[in-house]
Amino acid sequence: MSSDKLIIDYKNLKLAIIDIFSTIGMSRDDAELVADVLVEAELRGIPSHGLVRVKDYLGLWQKNRLNINAIPKIVNESISTGLVDGDNGLGMISGNFAMNVAISKAQNAGCGIVVVNNSNHFGIAGYYAIKAVEHDMIGIAMTNANPTVAPTFSKQAMLGTNPIAFAMPTKNESVFLADFATVPIARGKVELIEKQGKTVPSGMLQTADGIPTTDPSVLRQKGTILPLGGDYEHAGYKGYCLTAIVDILSAILSGANFGNFVPPQVSYLPDKDYYPGKGLGHFFAAIKLDAFRPANEIKEYMDLWIRSMRSATPVDPKQPVLIPNDPEIEKSNFHKKNGIPVLPEVIIELKNVLNELNIPIPDKLSII
Amino acid sequence: MSSDKLIIDYKNLKLAIIDIFSTIGMSRDDAELVADVLVEAELRGIPSHGLVRVKDYLGLWQKNRLNINAIPKIVNESISTGLVDGDNGLGMISGNFAMNVAISKAQNAGCGIVVVNNSNHFGIAGYYAIKAVEHDMIGIAMTNANPTVAPTFSKQAMLGTNPIAFAMPTKNESVFLADFATVPIARGKVELIEKQGKTVPSGMLQTADGIPTTDPSVLRQKGTILPLGGDYEHAGYKGYCLTAIVDILSAILSGANFGNFVPPQVSYLPDKDYYPGKGLGHFFAAIKLDAFRPANEIKEYMDLWIRSMRSATPVDPKQPVLIPNDPEIEKSNFHKKNGIPVLPEVIIELKNVLNELNIPIPDKLSII
Repeated sequence: MSSDKLIIDYKNLKLAIIDIFSTIGMSRDDAELVADVLVEAELRGIPSHGLVRVKDYLGLWQKNRLNINAIPKIVNESISTGLVDGDNGLGMISGNFAMNVAISKAQNAGCGIVVVNNSNHFGIAGYYAIKAVEHDMIGIAMTNANPTVAPTFSKQAMLGTNPIAFAMPTKNESVFLADFATVPIARGKVELIEKQGKTVPSGMLQTADGIPTTDPSVLRQKGTILPLGGDYEHAGYKGYCLTAIVDILSAILSGANFGNFVPPQVSYLPDKDYYPGKGLGHFFAAIKLDAFRPANEIKEYMDLWIRSMRSATPVDPKQPVLIPNDPEIEKSNFHKKNGIPVLPEVIIELKNVLNELNIPIPDKLSII
Repeated sequence: MSSDKLIIDYKNLKLAIIDIFSTIGMSRDDAELVADVLVEAELRGIPSHGLVRVKDYLGLWQKNRLNINAIPKIVNESISTGLVDGDNGLGMISGNFAMNVAISKAQNAGCGIVVVNNSNHFGIAGYYAIKAVEHDMIGIAMTNANPTVAPTFSKQAMLGTNPIAFAMPTKNESVFLADFATVPIARGKVELIEKQGKTVPSGMLQTADGIPTTDPSVLRQKGTILPLGGDYEHAGYKGYCLTAIVDILSAILSGANFGNFVPPQVSYLPDKDYYPGKGLGHFFAAIKLDAFRPANEIKEYMDLWIRSMRSATPVDPKQPVLIPNDPEIEKSNFHKKNGIPVLPEVIIELKNVLNELNIPIPDKLSII
């Protein structure tokens, strides 16, 4: 594996992704949205949710497992809630739609909760949560995902990495955005560690027999990821509860597939024989600050929270206390200025898929 | 420390607690509520949130730091939201009130979110969350708490153990209730481990200098609890995000004190010199199932979720896969039948406080 990365301007990367999805017949608006979410992940330094996904989405489309002309619909609603059918499209399409509905509900009712079924991978959860912030609202986004995680005392993959994103408006400080998978490590990161010949920190993985391990290769041998915390002794049952809550809010409420029934989001894994629900599920919430106290007061108070945490005594004065979103904002600014580093393998794999599907390779990707 | 526990019938324990709070002038209804929450903790096997708290509440009252005649008030509301002032009473009083408001909002609007400021310790979060279930609603309860936890890269206690409770209705299975502090270990548990001469599992504590340790005595020497996950390498920043989210929802939205400004909930710790907000804060939400899909369908689907997790392959066939609330229901049934085990020290400490305050010792506690 080469580690010499190619540098691509983020605007060109976005245009290339728009080209690809437009070519296969997705509407321009939808293609722009998909590209925007994927490039936002690259900008924020989360390449596992960026360009690398394009080949996966194309693979699902090729096998008729993904509707690229999906039109999400509200199938049930109340003044503060909504249920959306994602029409088996990409999660970006239904997710963006559903978050907008949640914001509009919150505008009228104070808060809004919208869940989605019949959807697919939606990229980074933070993309949706942060949309609420410009409306002076808290934004929350969750999704369930392919099973890789074993519940406490089990050795079977039953739950996904089920992320939570939480965005909170501020006055002068940067927006607070916490966006994290509810498991200690992502599958992609384990694969990277294996390629580097390193070991995984303790408390993150177990073998197929349920023995805790630091060996990254176990995930290719029916091993599983442990919940956040690790095993029972290390309070991993709390991480399990958290992952379970995201699954329940995303899928049980909406009627999507839950747990180990979540449809695979890559085409090399076969479609399952049986689905109790519809597609993959998401959960979105918007909470209007003004419904509680004047938004300006709350945002000033949030600034105080951030400054208070920032001024906590650091262990190492050279490593300041972490404020969620600070590192991602810094990375995003850097990548906007200096371009996005992409592994050549990612481009090569994508070009192979494009060639196979007779899709022209966008000019912007002709750098290799 | 003696470990021979006394056995008290749970109904007698409740009557004793009602007696004590009635004697100092709390209304009978409020005293019953406080007793109910504390005894529910004992029944569920969480004695750190049970009888042991009575002396703490009395101590705060004695120092005029707690209003035992508090009348919680809605100070702002919309169709789906509310802000409650807890009138500096116990969190049971404002918490019960606020959760009822959230349920009533959800009944009309689909969902309800109510936050509370100017409150105090509310006992176990699960008590409030589960109230929504009989109305065919999801219930969520959170609170912030005294600072004991260091944010990632810090060695200063800036956040509390900030629990989340999430209750989900079921059809034939037991109610799903996840109720967990968002940190790997409670302070009380660390103290117990120290008394037993044992060590704490790795990834839970750090010394005053920020060095990870398994030595439980560090909490008495300005050491801190690490977020769920542990240090940065072990993904503790995810646990930190989670604890932060609970703090923001409970305190920033409501105008309660946040982070290390949360007022001490024990009288031996002095009141702080400066408070940016009002008291301690809580967050409650109710989500009506029928607003999304027929409640009955959702509850049947939740049964399927539970049975699916229960049937996951266990590591050890003798130790079935954990379903949140299963162990607590079993303990509760056992304690209802066989009585609640109480440490003699807890009774002795309480009697000393009662004597000091000239409060008659309830008959039901005259067992030592």
